[in-house]
Order: sequence, then structure tokens, then C-alpha cells
Amino acid sequence: MTIPQSWDARAKSASFFGFTDFPSINERGTVIVTHGKGPYIYDTEGRSYLDANSGLWNMVAGFDHEGLIAAAKAQFDTFPGYHAFFGRMSDQTVMLSEKLVAVSPFERAKVFYTNSGSEANDTMVKMLWFLNASEGNPQKRKILTRVNGYHGVTVVSASMTGKPYNSVFGLPLDGFIHLGCPHYWRFGAAGETEAEFTARLGRELEETIAREGADTIAGFFAEPVQGAGGVIPPSQGYFQTIVPILKKHGIPLIADEVITGFGRTGEMWGCETYGFTPDAIISSKNLTAGFFPMGAVILGPDLADRLQAAADAIEEFPHGFTASGHPVGCAIALKAIDVIENEGLLENVRSLTPYFEAGLARLAENPNIGEWRGKGLMGALEAVKDKDTKTPFDGSLSVSERIANTCTDHGLLCRPLGQSIVLAPAFIMTEPQMDEMFDKLGAALKQVFAEVG
Amino acid sequence: MTIPQSWDARAKSASFFGFTDFPSINERGTVIVTHGKGPYIYDTEGRSYLDANSGLWNMVAGFDHEGLIAAAKAQFDTFPGYHAFFGRMSDQTVMLSEKLVAVSPFERAKVFYTNSGSEANDTMVKMLWFLNASEGNPQKRKILTRVNGYHGVTVVSASMTGKPYNSVFGLPLDGFIHLGCPHYWRFGAAGETEAEFTARLGRELEETIAREGADTIAGFFAEPVQGAGGVIPPSQGYFQTIVPILKKHGIPLIADEVITGFGRTGEMWGCETYGFTPDAIISSKNLTAGFFPMGAVILGPDLADRLQAAADAIEEFPHGFTASGHPVGCAIALKAIDVIENEGLLENVRSLTPYFEAGLARLAENPNIGEWRGKGLMGALEAVKDKDTKTPFDGSLSVSERIANTCTDHGLLCRPLGQSIVLAPAFIMTEPQMDEMFDKLGAALKQVFAEVG
Repeated sequence: MTIPQSWDARAKSASFFGFTDFPSINERGTVIVTHGKGPYIYDTEGRSYLDANSGLWNMVAGFDHEGLIAAAKAQFDTFPGYHAFFGRMSDQTVMLSEKLVAVSPFERAKVFYTNSGSEANDTMVKMLWFLNASEGNPQKRKILTRVNGYHGVTVVSASMTGKPYNSVFGLPLDGFIHLGCPHYWRFGAAGETEAEFTARLGRELEETIAREGADTIAGFFAEPVQGAGGVIPPSQGYFQTIVPILKKHGIPLIADEVITGFGRTGEMWGCETYGFTPDAIISSKNLTAGFFPMGAVILGPDLADRLQAAADAIEEFPHGFTASGHPVGCAIALKAIDVIENEGLLENVRSLTPYFEAGLARLAENPNIGEWRGKGLMGALEAVKDKDTKTPFDGSLSVSERIANTCTDHGLLCRPLGQSIVLAPAFIMTEPQMDEMFDKLGAALKQVFAEVG
Repeated sequence: MTIPQSWDARAKSASFFGFTDFPSINERGTVIVTHGKGPYIYDTEGRSYLDANSGLWNMVAGFDHEGLIAAAKAQFDTFPGYHAFFGRMSDQTVMLSEKLVAVSPFERAKVFYTNSGSEANDTMVKMLWFLNASEGNPQKRKILTRVNGYHGVTVVSASMTGKPYNSVFGLPLDGFIHLGCPHYWRFGAAGETEAEFTARLGRELEETIAREGADTIAGFFAEPVQGAGGVIPPSQGYFQTIVPILKKHGIPLIADEVITGFGRTGEMWGCETYGFTPDAIISSKNLTAGFFPMGAVILGPDLADRLQAAADAIEEFPHGFTASGHPVGCAIALKAIDVIENEGLLENVRSLTPYFEAGLARLAENPNIGEWRGKGLMGALEAVKDKDTKTPFDGSLSVSERIANTCTDHGLLCRPLGQSIVLAPAFIMTEPQMDEMFDKLGAALKQVFAEVG
């Protein structure tokens, strides 16, 4: 192969890009990143960008955190790789599980490792199918999730994801049922109060369980705040409405905390922010502050006991990934949790949240922003053609992509999701950096709305 | 949570073990590993073990390779994490794709990253479903694999895996069809020559395609040598028989090179060892020498072009993992490929293979070893109650687990798979280390066969 000269041409010739708007990179080129400093990244062309999304929600300690780098390097020197099969695992893996149980909302728990949130959700589905079959309920397999929920990209976790784009794969598979999205501003009916909207979602859940049969439903998976669906906090009283319904019917509630876990919403877990205790937690992303691919299933007492009983019955749980519980990932995760808990990151999320919300509210005064929404340091601005009727722009205008591209031109990375712009700053961000973020985004909004308006 | 005192109790209280024989760890305890040296690992109790399986086939440069450690540390200092979405990726990712294309058997190719072999197979299935639907063939979704093929543990990659244990999850899903295993010694009929056996597998494939309809079959996935199925090299002429059949019916052949890739069989790729060119390659494990979780789909020219066309038609390929193309993983993989190619590892596989084969053949003289088999530095010894009739031991005797546990007691780790013992030494192994491996395994075979015989 002849290696072409520009980084852009090199990237396009040998790499296939996922989750990328091809018209944008055809017109504008790719961005090839070489290094980072705090919340900024730098590319091969000498440009710098404030990354308002912490990478993909995950680089919450920034792109050059010395303590995390030192922890990674020390573990590479000590023991750079092992698995967790056959009753063997590294000491780091043992210690991380203890730590995860300690910081979990569970009195006791058991941890199973994967390499991603996708694999963790996929694994949780297999665990439920396995223990249900072992308990004599092989038909208890259906999975409930919500429209705009995002749970990953394996065939099963994509089937759980409630986004229309998965139809291009012929997904979801049968047996994956998407309930209503708890987004009052968008889905509330005319004249319906938020409490009535929430009650309606509760009735929808009850009716779905009645229609499908509780004995066919393996679990209900929910992000405490929907993330890649466009930062959608639940409507008022949502979890307080659905948790008793699920309990009544014996359907486990799995909190997908891949984005919300480890401080994003201002508490360690999103379920704490919203005052409910799930039956299991799916974790990834912040778990290693983005320094290593890792996911974890944290099973609360009931599911942990039932899974162990099912496994004991056949002497094995025939599942696991080669790099599950990798010692370097575990050492990094131990440090990341310590950094978030003890180096002021969680504190910074809490103290910066009012400033973040004020900035979002200020930009939402723009006549083409229909709503701002968020929780902790995750937020979104929803673009609309008409604020009163909430009418979106014509899809062919690619409004949110244009806003994001305009931001990129001015050294700010933010994420278009549907017709919203999503912000998920690093937990180390400062007020001046937040000013830069809102100034650049505000200018881009004005420019793009002037063009399309 | 009160932390119990022993490492074994700590491990069991907070971690859930996958692919682990629970009776063994209940009786014998777990092994908690702290560090390694060359092909040896060391545990919290001060014991050392020669790991005859390179971790899980993957730690081929040993557990303390200085060059790999240095590459990892340098990249952590430079840029410790980023994603590959939205037309952005790290410079390391760009360079690794170029390198993978250069070492691939393809004239040109495109690379897509995942975090594991499971995710890579799952991704390849989604790619095939996506491009078939885009080309007007949404019904072209069935996946062909083989009995004893191993392709991973996500719901879809487990459905591809042809092992009976997946029934405990209610798998395979519909549309995943397992053809015959090309293991002549075990599945050859009485009086059937190896050539006749291979021809029979070809006819089975033809008949399956005729029965199901070629226009319903998305792809055929095969490991060049079946790995976790028990190290099963294909019968003579196998790929030469099936490749023309697949080509005739327009069914892509995907080589799952997770285990065989990067030198295990003595060539860079297993498909080179067996003289065929697939339409795509699935890679993982040795790709980073086990130092980082990473998988890759390497698409040959035809699939790369068709996938790009399908993505261009909807402006996006809506798929990708947060840590896909992680800069540290890519920097490590670049170094791992260099180490395998240029530091004598591939050479060592080739030069040690006759010594390895001689050792296997010597142990196979044991009256309770029915067959030795292997290719390059992967091999297996199959335990039998009766060598002439090839009758296996009663399953309740757990013969292979007992052999592996006896080896563990004497400081050797080898893997029980069905009734075989699998060996997959690191590419850095020496002849004296191989002597130690065969001596300890030979002693264990004698001891266990005396107990159960």
C-alpha cells in the first residue's frame, strides 16, 4: 500500500469511521488528534479544541491526568495483562471488585467485568436468560427499555437501544420492547401536566406487562438520565412510579449507569440522584476515566445469589471475555474512583452545576432553542424552528451538525444528537473554561440560526 | 462491607467468576496473580506457574515484555485516551490501520476497531446485515459457522459459537446454523478416508445452502484452526473444498483469526497457513499481545467498498464502541506487531514447532491419549478411555479438569477443553521451558490416568 501524504487521506484510506457524518468529513476533512491537556485536545494541524463532551462522556479527569497516568504506568511495570477465567484473576481485579461493591448502593454485591458498556448490557441479558432458565422459566426473556434509551451497539444492546437508526440493521430483534421516553417537554400531550404524563408512562408499563405477561419479561433496563438519546432527565416522579410496578411483577430493574455512574449527575450514581435502588448496575466509561476499555456488571444481593445458584447447578457460568478484569484496567479504575471521590472531582461537579445550568438557561433564551435540560454536568439545548409549537427544523438542514461544525471551526467540540446539542464537560472544568464553552456555542447558535432561520 | 482476610475469600466475596469450574475453586481455592516474568506468573501465596496457554492464547510476548511496557507508558504520557467517532481519531489509530492493512492478505482493506473478538464478530454480523439491507437483500441474514467453532460470548457471537453449553442461555438465536466440525479423527465415519470426510463436509455445505437459500445467508465464519473448541486443525483440503462453494453462492467467508492471527500457526495469518484468502478477518488477542483489550474487523476490498457505499447512502454507519481505536491500545498494537515480526517471535514459533510437535507426539504414546493434534504453537492431547474405539471417559470423572488441576499443583497451567488438554505456549518460549511443560504434563497424565483408569 502506498501511504498517502495528508493525515486526512491516511485516515480515510485505511480506517472505516463509525458514528460519523460522512458528508461532513467529505467536505471538511477528519480531525486527527495527537495529544491533550486538561479538557483540551490538539490535532495534527496544530489546532486545539475545548472538548465539551469529555471525549465520549468519559474523560472526566481530562486528557493528561498525572495520577491516572502514573497508576497505569506502575501497573504496566508490575503486571501488564491477565484474564479472569478458571478461578484465576489478578490482585487488582479482586481489589477493584471490593471497591465497586463498597461504592455501590448495595449492601452486598458481586462484580463481573467486560470491556465496554455494550458488553456489560449484553452480559446482563445473558445472565437474566441463564438464571431464569435455571429457575424453570426459560420463556422469561423479553427485555423492556425506552424510546431514546441508549444501551450500546452489539446486536442485543443495539436492540435495547430505542433509536430509529437501528432499523438499518434490521433491529431490534424480537422480544426487545421499547416503552415511552420520559421526556415531558417533547412527549407530554396538550394540556397534560408533568404528573399526569408520568402517570401515563406508569399505565403504559402496567398495560405492557399485562399484554406480554410478567412471566415473559426478564428485565427492565433504564438509564437514570438518558444520555446518547439527547440528555433526557426523567419526568417528575418517573422512577417512583415505575419501581413499584416492576417490583409487584417480579421484574428486575437494571440501571444503565454507563454515563451517569461515578459522579456525572452530582451523586456517585444516577439512581442515588433519583432516589431509587435498582437490582443491578451497568457501569463503564467514567469507571476508568476513559483511560482503558472496561465495563462492569454490579449485581445486587438478589441477582447475585440467584446467578450463583444457577451457576452452581451446572458447576459453571460459561461466559467471559479474554480481557475481563484486566489488571491494568483494574488498577486504573481503582485510581479513577479515588480521583473522583477524593481529589475534588465529584465536589466540582456539584459546585459547577449551578453555573452550568445558568449558562444553558442563558443560551435557551435564543428564540430557536426550545428547551434546555440537564442534570449535574450533562446538559442539552434543543433547537426548534418554532419555540411555541416546538416544531423542529427540517431534517435536511442538518441544524445540529451545522452548529457542531461551526463550533469545531472555533475550537469547541460539542455533540449533535437529533436536533439537540449536548454538553458533558469534564469534571475538572473551571468557570473560565465554561465561559469559553458557552461563548463559542452561543456564537455558533446565532450564526447557524441566522443562516437557516 | 467487611473485607475478609484471605485473598481467596476476598476474591470470592466480591467477584463473580466466568468460565470457572466452581467445584474446583470451592475445593481448591482461587489463584490470585500478582506479577509475571517471561511465560511465568506468580500468585499471592508465593507460588509460580509456567503458563502453557500464554494467558488466554494472547500473552505471546510474555508477562513482562519491556518494549511493550515502554510503548504503553510512552503513549499514556502522550495521549491516554480518545474515541474514533464524528470523524475524529488519534494519530496512533490512523497508523495502526495502515499497518494492519499492510500486514493483511488484502491488496487494500479498511479497519474498524472494537474492544474484543466478541465485539468484532458481533460487529461483522451487523455490517453484513447492514450492507445486505442497503443492497435490497434484507432477508440475507443467516450466519453459518461450525460445531466446536468459538466466536465469543455476546448473544450473537455466542450464537455463532458451536458449543453445547450455550443452550443454558437459550442460544443459539434463530438463523445461526452450525455445520459439521472438520475433525476427521473424531467425526470421520468408519472406513471413510480423510479426503472423503472433507468432501462430505463440502456436500453438507452445498445442501445447507440449497435448503436455506443462498439469498438468506449473510456469511460463513470460520477459524482457520478451531481454538477454544479444542485446537482442531481442518481436515485435509477443507478450505480448498468450501471456498469455491461459498464463492459460487456469493457468501462471504470471514476468517476468525482471533487466536490464529499474528503468528500462532507459523504464518502471520492462519488463512495463509491454509492457503486461502477470506473476505474479511476478525482479529484480537495477539493484536496487542494481551496488553490491552482490542479487536479489529479488517475488511477486504469487496466488503470495504460495499460497506462504504451502504454507509454513504444513509450518510453514516451508526455503530461504534466508546473505546474503539483507543490511542494506547493502538500504540501497543503497533509495537506488538513489530515485536512479533521483527524481534524473532514469529521465527521462534516456526523453529520451535517441530520440538513442540515431538513433545505432543511423545505424550500421545500414553494409552489414554487418543490423539495429538496442532498447528504451529497450538496443540491438544485428547484423553480417551479406550484408544482403539476412541471412547471418552465418563463425563462425571472430569478427567481433563483433574489433569489441569494436577498440573496446577506442580506449577504448570494448561487448559482443559472437553476431554482434551490444550497447550498454546508464548512465542518467547525456550526449549528448556518446553521440556518443563511436557515433563509436568506427562507426570500429571500418568497420575490422573492411574487414578481413573
